[in-house]
Amino acid sequence: MRNIVIKRPVLTYADGVVEHREDQVVTEYPLTIFLNEEEFATLVCTPEHLEQLTVGFLASEGVITSFGDIKSLLVEETRGLVHVETNRVNALSKNLHSKRYLTSCCGKSRQSFYFYNDAKTAKKITARRVTLTYQDCFALMKKMQGGADIFRETGGVHNAALCDASGIILARMDIGRHNALDKIYGYCLQHEIALDDKVIVFSGRVSSEVLLKAAKIGCEIVLSKSAPTELALDLAEELGITVVGFIRNRSLNVYTHPERIRS
Amino acid sequence: MRNIVIKRPVLTYADGVVEHREDQVVTEYPLTIFLNEEEFATLVCTPEHLEQLTVGFLASEGVITSFGDIKSLLVEETRGLVHVETNRVNALSKNLHSKRYLTSCCGKSRQSFYFYNDAKTAKKITARRVTLTYQDCFALMKKMQGGADIFRETGGVHNAALCDASGIILARMDIGRHNALDKIYGYCLQHEIALDDKVIVFSGRVSSEVLLKAAKIGCEIVLSKSAPTELALDLAEELGITVVGFIRNRSLNVYTHPERIRS
Repeated sequence: MRNIVIKRPVLTYADGVVEHREDQVVTEYPLTIFLNEEEFATLVCTPEHLEQLTVGFLASEGVITSFGDIKSLLVEETRGLVHVETNRVNALSKNLHSKRYLTSCCGKSRQSFYFYNDAKTAKKITARRVTLTYQDCFALMKKMQGGADIFRETGGVHNAALCDASGIILARMDIGRHNALDKIYGYCLQHEIALDDKVIVFSGRVSSEVLLKAAKIGCEIVLSKSAPTELALDLAEELGITVVGFIRNRSLNVYTHPERIRS
Repeated sequence: MRNIVIKRPVLTYADGVVEHREDQVVTEYPLTIFLNEEEFATLVCTPEHLEQLTVGFLASEGVITSFGDIKSLLVEETRGLVHVETNRVNALSKNLHSKRYLTSCCGKSRQSFYFYNDAKTAKKITARRVTLTYQDCFALMKKMQGGADIFRETGGVHNAALCDASGIILARMDIGRHNALDKIYGYCLQHEIALDDKVIVFSGRVSSEVLLKAAKIGCEIVLSKSAPTELALDLAEELGITVVGFIRNRSLNVYTHPERIRS
């Protein structure tokens, strides 16, 4: 198993004093996915839960639709490779991976989706199966941050948690914002966890990518400590997702679909 | 010109008080590069300096080596497209775009590079054409942060600046960390700015991607407010780049090649 944090010598300067010390540095690990023996994508990630990351990523991309679509999955950790064989390859998804979704009627309507696979796999949510109080939002954010202590000192790691109103079900972290969510998605597919009444709590900015992952996973509410982008909010409006941002001590902002947040 | 920040209605909650207000939200914009009429890549970015972004990205990827390699460049802003014609396409680079760099002797030596194009375009720096004092490091970080005020409230934007010991030459920001650096790189290529005695100041984490961009641009020193990753530091050792991290009020860490930082 590769380390997710490593010690390194460092020269520190503080108030005029120079010292040689040791510092903890977070690792970064390239993982290349081979799909039926063909190179498919390279994810740069924190080296843990690599199977879940792979499964979640392939489902996000629409290459697989369930864990059962995977015939075999072999991680070669030293080389940073994972070999996946699928029963049925979704050839269309594979070819459209990272391909821009260009509508013919540009400029006429807003065009929030930009990749084919996103437009296909992000589900519109019309139900309201989960609601939270303002206090729930603060409590869930606090719980997630409490569990994320280890990496506070190394800096820059994104934390994501799958929750329901009562607490955290699963937490994952990664140097890549989308990877943390793919690890959660992969775990849920592997363990067949029902996702339709769940909430995503995220430490970082809610970009379009983060919002789309939440939609693919099927979560109705996204809670974040940080800011959303405009594109993420457009997508959230369209897909029926509640976005709550800037969750700090006793204040927060509800950006979209406020009907799921109550007093 | 698209807005880089937009106003949106938001429902705020603070200490029990719920209000309907307006909030500023940062925009996110997909830009798809067509290279000699073929779809090449989609960058999700902050919609400004799109020409510079394109030029810098293509140079980073090794598709072009100078601004003169570009025959024409047309930005279609409404559709989020940019059409680039090059005099000579570097066919190898194009095919190797995002392809994993897998050496045959895995496990034997450290393998820091992971993409072919990075291994080819990131230059090893052996010279020491620029040095900084500890005080220079603090002053440059302060200058960059001072100029980045506008986006502090919207959150999550990465700021990058090209500097020499005396101050900031060019500052760029983007929601994508690598985009901010590509915009700087593109500007420098367009305006033929000599880069061999320059310093990069960056607001975010120094990931391998950020370090590689700095190496491609040809800068010897990278200053950051935040943490570096282990892979970035391995690359910095290899490529001869000085990485200074956690630059706060009166303290900082020098991680690699400390010979360029003096009292």
